[in-house]
Amino acid sequence: MKNYIQPNEWKIVEEGFDPQLNKISESLFSIGNGRMGQRANFEESYTGETLSGNYVAGVYYPDKTRVGWWKNGYPDYFAKVLNAANWVRLDISIDGEVLDLHETKVSDFKRVLHMKEGYLERQFVAELKSGKQVQVIAKRFCSIADDEIAAIHYQLKAMNFSGTITINSAIDGDVKNQDSNYDEKFWDEAAKQYSNDTLFLTMTTKKTAFDVCTAAFTTVSVNQQNIASEGSTQQDKFIANAFTAPVKAGDVLDIYKYACNVTSQNYEKDALHAAAQKAISRAQDKKFDGLFQDQVAAWAAKWVESDILIEGDVAAQQAIRFNIFQLNQTYTGADARLNIGPKGFTGEKYGGSTYWDTEAYCIPFYLATAPQEVAKNLLIYRHNHLQKAIENAEKLGFNGGAALYPMVTMNGEECHNEWEITFEEIHRNGAIAFAIFNYIRYTGDAAYLAEYGLEVLIGIARFWKQRVNWSAEKNNYVILGVTGPNEYENNINNNWYTNILAAWCMRYARESAEYVKSKDAARYAEIVKLTSFKEEQEFADWTSIADQMFYPYSEKEQIFLQQDGYLDKEQMLVSELPAADRPLNQKWSWDRI
Amino acid sequence: MKNYIQPNEWKIVEEGFDPQLNKISESLFSIGNGRMGQRANFEESYTGETLSGNYVAGVYYPDKTRVGWWKNGYPDYFAKVLNAANWVRLDISIDGEVLDLHETKVSDFKRVLHMKEGYLERQFVAELKSGKQVQVIAKRFCSIADDEIAAIHYQLKAMNFSGTITINSAIDGDVKNQDSNYDEKFWDEAAKQYSNDTLFLTMTTKKTAFDVCTAAFTTVSVNQQNIASEGSTQQDKFIANAFTAPVKAGDVLDIYKYACNVTSQNYEKDALHAAAQKAISRAQDKKFDGLFQDQVAAWAAKWVESDILIEGDVAAQQAIRFNIFQLNQTYTGADARLNIGPKGFTGEKYGGSTYWDTEAYCIPFYLATAPQEVAKNLLIYRHNHLQKAIENAEKLGFNGGAALYPMVTMNGEECHNEWEITFEEIHRNGAIAFAIFNYIRYTGDAAYLAEYGLEVLIGIARFWKQRVNWSAEKNNYVILGVTGPNEYENNINNNWYTNILAAWCMRYARESAEYVKSKDAARYAEIVKLTSFKEEQEFADWTSIADQMFYPYSEKEQIFLQQDGYLDKEQMLVSELPAADRPLNQKWSWDRI
Repeated sequence: MKNYIQPNEWKIVEEGFDPQLNKISESLFSIGNGRMGQRANFEESYTGETLSGNYVAGVYYPDKTRVGWWKNGYPDYFAKVLNAANWVRLDISIDGEVLDLHETKVSDFKRVLHMKEGYLERQFVAELKSGKQVQVIAKRFCSIADDEIAAIHYQLKAMNFSGTITINSAIDGDVKNQDSNYDEKFWDEAAKQYSNDTLFLTMTTKKTAFDVCTAAFTTVSVNQQNIASEGSTQQDKFIANAFTAPVKAGDVLDIYKYACNVTSQNYEKDALHAAAQKAISRAQDKKFDGLFQDQVAAWAAKWVESDILIEGDVAAQQAIRFNIFQLNQTYTGADARLNIGPKGFTGEKYGGSTYWDTEAYCIPFYLATAPQEVAKNLLIYRHNHLQKAIENAEKLGFNGGAALYPMVTMNGEECHNEWEITFEEIHRNGAIAFAIFNYIRYTGDAAYLAEYGLEVLIGIARFWKQRVNWSAEKNNYVILGVTGPNEYENNINNNWYTNILAAWCMRYARESAEYVKSKDAARYAEIVKLTSFKEEQEFADWTSIADQMFYPYSEKEQIFLQQDGYLDKEQMLVSELPAADRPLNQKWSWDRI
Repeated sequence: MKNYIQPNEWKIVEEGFDPQLNKISESLFSIGNGRMGQRANFEESYTGETLSGNYVAGVYYPDKTRVGWWKNGYPDYFAKVLNAANWVRLDISIDGEVLDLHETKVSDFKRVLHMKEGYLERQFVAELKSGKQVQVIAKRFCSIADDEIAAIHYQLKAMNFSGTITINSAIDGDVKNQDSNYDEKFWDEAAKQYSNDTLFLTMTTKKTAFDVCTAAFTTVSVNQQNIASEGSTQQDKFIANAFTAPVKAGDVLDIYKYACNVTSQNYEKDALHAAAQKAISRAQDKKFDGLFQDQVAAWAAKWVESDILIEGDVAAQQAIRFNIFQLNQTYTGADARLNIGPKGFTGEKYGGSTYWDTEAYCIPFYLATAPQEVAKNLLIYRHNHLQKAIENAEKLGFNGGAALYPMVTMNGEECHNEWEITFEEIHRNGAIAFAIFNYIRYTGDAAYLAEYGLEVLIGIARFWKQRVNWSAEKNNYVILGVTGPNEYENNINNNWYTNILAAWCMRYARESAEYVKSKDAARYAEIVKLTSFKEEQEFADWTSIADQMFYPYSEKEQIFLQQDGYLDKEQMLVSELPAADRPLNQKWSWDRI
């Protein structure tokens, strides 16, 4: 955690405004609810360094691959979670002077991520060039109790002036991804409307044609007296409504903005507008305080299940809660079509796509802290992608139902394009199988095998069966040309971890098949048919290969080796590395690591 | 060679116009003279598929690196030879109707590359939509007798009409590289002028600030009666002059266009205009026929030296002459600052930069077919880059004067950006050393060692000394993590070729040092000082390492192995590979090759 963040057991706190740190803080203070999320961008205008980020889970764009040097087998595109319509915008002017922290004197700036209650808070005093001062307290959250809804309470106090404040509450769909390979915009406008004092903007993704309808309803009051909306301004991909509020020194202006995102993943396209209207109505009924109470209660329930106490080390307590908070706001397990982007809803890095990190690192967390359906939905996600995994393997020359799960994916198709990872970091396939084992071990839900698991395990075992080759030299099966889990040593032979995982997968697939056969012969017969499973031959192959797998070993040192030839390397302790050379991945060229 | 090319011992011949093949033919029929070159683009307008290409040797742009996944140690830019001002343009209209083979009925189309005489010829009959027919015969060449000059003779016969033909003879500097990483244009305009009926356009490269002045002088006649130029049209980065010629059926229009490229590599910037005027004057004096006679004579001299006869196989005879022709028109040895782009002047592929292919494959050709200064200039090119090679090695963690020559370069700095090649295909360094040995072996010019060679050899030997490591396991020196010359197997250990070349380099460096010491003690002392050479220690290290180098070997098969673990691979004969799988590099994913 960046060291400008103050240690606090339940909060992430930034005090004082440093524009240099703003993009980092926008990431750190991100909020989300599994269905949508956003960076901690300011509501009011900001002309300084910022990366606007609003993300809707599962809504992606296949961005045509761009690499330095094309290699055969690379996928056509990288699926990216999209920067979606920005609904937090509240453009505020005071007697025509724009409130913009880049252009004003800022004091008492504080940004707090309340992890316990699940909301973002920001306070500051700004002095405009005219000398007018305002004090702002802004709170917002994405509701995990009603995951289509989000809300802002933006309170502004006129400190030393009388004048007129104008507020333009906007939904801005004219956004782009910073990581766009060809500097394209990924959205077209589908529709917009202003009705019932509510803004509606429906955007549609290019190529993938996902529709997302974003709606927002805003109220403005001065000293509790409501100000009426003056109607909408509409431009291409943009809609806003305006308020004009006369204030005098000491007056308090309260802005409430309720927004929702509803998508064509969950509604017919022609039902989106009505769904958005309904979501906004729910928010209007509950109001900010009601929504906020639900939010606090929902997070309290999550913390009961998932909190980890670290006593005597505030920074460590803060860090572990930050991790738990991020996992819980990135993925809730409510929808088996969703997964966990490595950076959650905090930015564009890694494209928001699914990696094997889900199975290796995240499933154990959700198993231990959430109802078992959450982990199960993550497993079903991969079951749903089995046919694509078989196609991925076919593209690399495998056949007969062998499945290679992708390194990076949104819809099951491989998106990654580094040959040493895409083609060679195949231990990921083992992580998918091990997650099934792990889930059953933890939950006892062995019925999952018949239900979904066995089909996946057969596909994976078939991959390993074809991926090994017999070495007459070693009188064993070997696995050549892989990248192990350290990711830095590429195209190596007989990575110990990969080999043992491969052997384990083949044994576990056989055990699982035998288990399903013994417990549910009818379903087993169905799976045999579905997968054209040749039981006798495939069992024999898997067992024979697993039993004769090669594991690099040093007789002299009596140790297993990470890979063939490992002991030829110069052996050096971390303590012998000059500090100036660390972190190695930023100081050494790739081949030396 | 594409199979639409007709077998012919001295010519490359295409008959009939197939727009689908045009870009291939533009490459195949390229012409050049070592100083400049160009694709076989049409002179007249063409709205079909085409890649405009005019290149000036040594004039490059450092295009900011663009890769899919950045890795530490990658260079900032890739130096690219630029698509330069297009001076072949002759925009022709007949009674307002543009002559454009994409829009007309084409017959009797023939494109011939006359390799013996060194010129490009094209003939066709075009019928415009109006029914008007013209017959065209166009010849052009880049003079190897006067390498600043090129010339076109474009003859057009009005076959069945009377009317007015307008000719706009242009120099178009508003060109771009198709391979631009960020879709930028690489040139700014520096100056343009129309004087003495001559077009002058000086363009300057962004960042590198090379100036290139292109000039062109055009004459037009009908039935030998000259038509006067109507003066110039000027636009941004563009200049042209116009002619209007009334013709009747049977009339013959002759256009002669003389052009030159002069650059700030060879002249002061403020002297470029005068140099261009001089070059154009030389062309005007000799006229097309005089220049052409010089061209034929110069090529005849080249062929006397470099021809290879293959009897009884016309296609093989054509192919070997095509290779010889390309080498001779890409590099003439006149300038030690120039080198050999892998694709010559035929297109943008490989950026026109210098690869180790120069030393490994091209130097033997020039040694055998050209005065020894040609190969010597190629060696001096690398001597001039020694300091940059030392810096390249430093960037990868080497020190003490160790030199790693780049995989790809224009000015000595590494430009390549694939870790498995840039950092690991280090046998290239051996090729640079071996070329010195080869040159001396062929020419007997051992004095080259004292003059230039030894400094380079010391830098290279120092690199190998630091690149090996001692394997206690093998009780030998090993070289880990390399890419051998097959380029497809990456990050392998103890590539036999690389290891033996490394040992050879260290031995040869010592031998060469001892030779220089014995023959020219004063120069030796100078080199020792220049390179801070610690003779005793470095000699001892090199010999000790070379003597204890590890070479993978199979006792059982009694063969050397390409690399560690080679025999673990599935051994398969080419004849066992399905034809559908070939060529492997287009059918198999990178990891399988």
